[in-house]
Amino acid sequence: MNKLINEQNFILKGNILYSKTPTELSVTDQGFLVCCDGLSQGVFPVIPENYTHLPVIDCKDHLIIPGMTDLHLHAPQYPFRAIGMDMELLEWLETHTFPEESRYADENYARHAYAIFAKDLKLSTTTRAVAFATIHPQATALLMDELETTGLKTLVGKVNMDQNCSDIIREPSAKTSLYVTVKWLESIAGKYKNTKPILTPRFAPTCSAALLEGLGKLQKEYQLPVQSHLSENLSEIAWVKELFPWSLFYGDVYDHFGLFGNEAPTIMAHCVHCPEEEIARMKNNHVYIAHCPQSNINLASGIAPVRRYLEESIPVGLGTDIAGGANLSMFRCIADAIGMSKLYWRLIDQEKKPLTMEEGFYLATAGGGSFFGKVGSFAPGFEMDALILDDKNIRTSRNLSTKERLERYLYLAEEGGKIVEKYVAGKKIF
Amino acid sequence: MNKLINEQNFILKGNILYSKTPTELSVTDQGFLVCCDGLSQGVFPVIPENYTHLPVIDCKDHLIIPGMTDLHLHAPQYPFRAIGMDMELLEWLETHTFPEESRYADENYARHAYAIFAKDLKLSTTTRAVAFATIHPQATALLMDELETTGLKTLVGKVNMDQNCSDIIREPSAKTSLYVTVKWLESIAGKYKNTKPILTPRFAPTCSAALLEGLGKLQKEYQLPVQSHLSENLSEIAWVKELFPWSLFYGDVYDHFGLFGNEAPTIMAHCVHCPEEEIARMKNNHVYIAHCPQSNINLASGIAPVRRYLEESIPVGLGTDIAGGANLSMFRCIADAIGMSKLYWRLIDQEKKPLTMEEGFYLATAGGGSFFGKVGSFAPGFEMDALILDDKNIRTSRNLSTKERLERYLYLAEEGGKIVEKYVAGKKIF
Repeated sequence: MNKLINEQNFILKGNILYSKTPTELSVTDQGFLVCCDGLSQGVFPVIPENYTHLPVIDCKDHLIIPGMTDLHLHAPQYPFRAIGMDMELLEWLETHTFPEESRYADENYARHAYAIFAKDLKLSTTTRAVAFATIHPQATALLMDELETTGLKTLVGKVNMDQNCSDIIREPSAKTSLYVTVKWLESIAGKYKNTKPILTPRFAPTCSAALLEGLGKLQKEYQLPVQSHLSENLSEIAWVKELFPWSLFYGDVYDHFGLFGNEAPTIMAHCVHCPEEEIARMKNNHVYIAHCPQSNINLASGIAPVRRYLEESIPVGLGTDIAGGANLSMFRCIADAIGMSKLYWRLIDQEKKPLTMEEGFYLATAGGGSFFGKVGSFAPGFEMDALILDDKNIRTSRNLSTKERLERYLYLAEEGGKIVEKYVAGKKIF
Repeated sequence: MNKLINEQNFILKGNILYSKTPTELSVTDQGFLVCCDGLSQGVFPVIPENYTHLPVIDCKDHLIIPGMTDLHLHAPQYPFRAIGMDMELLEWLETHTFPEESRYADENYARHAYAIFAKDLKLSTTTRAVAFATIHPQATALLMDELETTGLKTLVGKVNMDQNCSDIIREPSAKTSLYVTVKWLESIAGKYKNTKPILTPRFAPTCSAALLEGLGKLQKEYQLPVQSHLSENLSEIAWVKELFPWSLFYGDVYDHFGLFGNEAPTIMAHCVHCPEEEIARMKNNHVYIAHCPQSNINLASGIAPVRRYLEESIPVGLGTDIAGGANLSMFRCIADAIGMSKLYWRLIDQEKKPLTMEEGFYLATAGGGSFFGKVGSFAPGFEMDALILDDKNIRTSRNLSTKERLERYLYLAEEGGKIVEKYVAGKKIF
């Protein structure tokens, strides 16, 4: 996958931070991050003998941190982020989301909208993203074209939905949905270096059993990862129980059709209201959870029990869930995750201690990054995704430690912070 | 108070929004906001005959909205905002807050730190602010000097605290605290046009009965407004009950000494965990509540029942509570207030419906502004505080209504929004 060139062999010098473990930060002031063939060789206080021939890029007093992974977002919803926030999930989908998504049948609109999204994502904190598109195969391919040009590494899903939603956005049958999905997969096979497909049943209520069964078969045939939504909203959960009365719990529907972890690497967004059996199944199947704290606020969904998931060693990353979440910044996402874990502790369960800054940072980097392999850390062997941060315009009269500068940046990125350079797998994208 | 000059007679042309009522937004596309002698004469679709001689400032396609009031913040805490966020209130005060505040005994440090704060506040969304300083009268006067130069209108309090806190920040006795406060009041009497004093007992636990009694007398003598903290944190509330066993509830301590509304215009910050009797007393005494949603998240305090306060017609505004809250932007404060009201509804009481966008906007403008008189609206007779907003860099493929543009700006101000001009009581400050 990595066609490597010599320009990917270099050293970044600066104040380097990354997560050694979920609870421990590695901090090296004026250290050296060695990159060979797109992979980190580690962080050193002085340049080791065998790397002294490599060019050194001096990032001066800037902070150097791993790139971040946005584990859940909806690219076609970007145009209406931060608009119409006064609704819960199901009403919001019908009123705002489906009408906007229906516009992507028009390739000109899709090209225009996705170009804006891709440009903004490139300039953001994100180096890896997992995105929903719409039901439209051409528009989905256009999104993949746009994302490929950014240099980011992404997974993109053409959405499948054949029931229980407005006509404007419903595929006419399971058969058509599956047929179009195969055509889409064939049309983009081998086309991109950085942009790959992911199977994307929208969520159980809008997918017939026939569609889910067909997608389970496609997953095996094409060996694709899977993404969907799970236990986000109480009305949604009740609806799934009505539609699939045989299911033991919401996630059991996906699992029944082979779309819930194990051989099918799977991301489930939200997981706010999971019952015990569902948590046990996710753990057993190694299902990834995309925790989307701002979306869970905006759509009044609740607060996901992230501490519990970490205690269970269920893999967790963070997602902006554009447009359920309004902000594209993963820094904001970290701050929201920490904040919501404090309210969870205060309002729901005082046994579940709040996330620390270190843990929030871990979730956005190595936590979510691991869905892409060895990503989100500067430990040796990890793909070298990096952000170079300038915080000098976040002014203070204090002398700050490097760790304090990072904590501050998480909360104040948008009040004076600036990403000055960005690397993905050792390649500079700006 | 308003020494008015002719340059304050003009008309702003653009897309004008303000709160007609707490639930209703006035929107005039390409309208005319007439300002005479620093006061709004109203918003008109065409210029009325008697104003046609006034110069028109064409704000083109920009949004024009009232300036915002930050009803609660701690200026000396600005240097460490967004640092050390992993604690509850009382531990956070001892670990981070009091050591930083003790540095303001050094006037050089104070001058340096307050210059940064005042500059950033000037550039922010805030046109009016109510600020805590520290116990130090010279540093407090320096803060007032700095704020006066910004053109913002502010209330600033030298803090009083004479017990139950580190030596480094404790005044030696009630008598000294009162004496120093009088000296401070005399030193700044008549000195400023825009910057006025406010009495500031830190919070009940750090004030002896003798100090509170003396402050009550000062309030009457100097006819000053009052600010303090109320029912923010559960441990704090229990501590007040221990210290003032005769009190019926926390706010009863302040009221006992004449520092809780009625003849003493009063702002109480937080009000997260108020018992019924306290709510009734606030209502009866017309006490203002400064709702500080982000601080209540960061310090794991909980969620204040803002809907309840609105139903009771208790006056409410918003506060950033720097550094309990990390962000200086009142737009962020609105978004946080709306978001927390949704979680309050979901997690605590489904009878209390979430704040709408209109209500959040109202709280930050006319709601808090009313503590300063007729402020926070463009209705005729209101002091003309205004922000001119450029949102063209928050890109979208959609055509948006003016109201949608405002809603979006609330959530995305820091992702591409720009304040291009700012007026306070008709005077352009940048």
